[in-house]
Amino acid sequence: MSIRVVAENHIRADAVDEYLAVTKELVEKTNTLDKGCISYQLARDSSDPLHFAVIEEWEDQASLDAHMKAEHFTRLIPELGKFGSGKPGGIAIFERVY
Amino acid sequence: MSIRVVAENHIRADAVDEYLAVTKELVEKTNTLDKGCISYQLARDSSDPLHFAVIEEWEDQASLDAHMKAEHFTRLIPELGKFGSGKPGGIAIFERVY
Repeated sequence: MSIRVVAENHIRADAVDEYLAVTKELVEKTNTLDKGCISYQLARDSSDPLHFAVIEEWEDQASLDAHMKAEHFTRLIPELGKFGSGKPGGIAIFERVY
Repeated sequence: MSIRVVAENHIRADAVDEYLAVTKELVEKTNTLDKGCISYQLARDSSDPLHFAVIEEWEDQASLDAHMKAEHFTRLIPELGKFGSGKPGGIAIFERVY
């Protein structure tokens, strides 16, 4: 079964435009280049415009591991860290059951 | 853009089998019957076997609203409430950005 990831970030209001630009590149490169990527989307909380989640689906753990070593991941993820509001986000990794 | 839902539950160890049986029916009926359902999966936290998430994608808010009125939803969701460990879960609704 596939691997599901939900990675949440809380962003400063003054950094949302930059955050959206960096995540756009991350989403496009991941979907285009990363083998085993079933789905990789950025989503925005309907009730909190400063709360975002990257919602991911990977064929297996190996493809997720390879993604985290890709050039676009290692370059862009540290960029995203600059935009955080300080409110804790978090990453949860799941295995699909059904 | 689509609507994404992440609905998390923490389940009692002695209720996991029943939880899995009820969510199996919920996942199968939702994917088979509910118009506008792009994806509706049950996933289990890789580091906490009592932590589950239903990870959903809907074409639009109207299809999510209709799902929440479906017979299988109104019958099975109250069943799931019986299996909770007491640790807070939660539901987050997102709009896809990219």
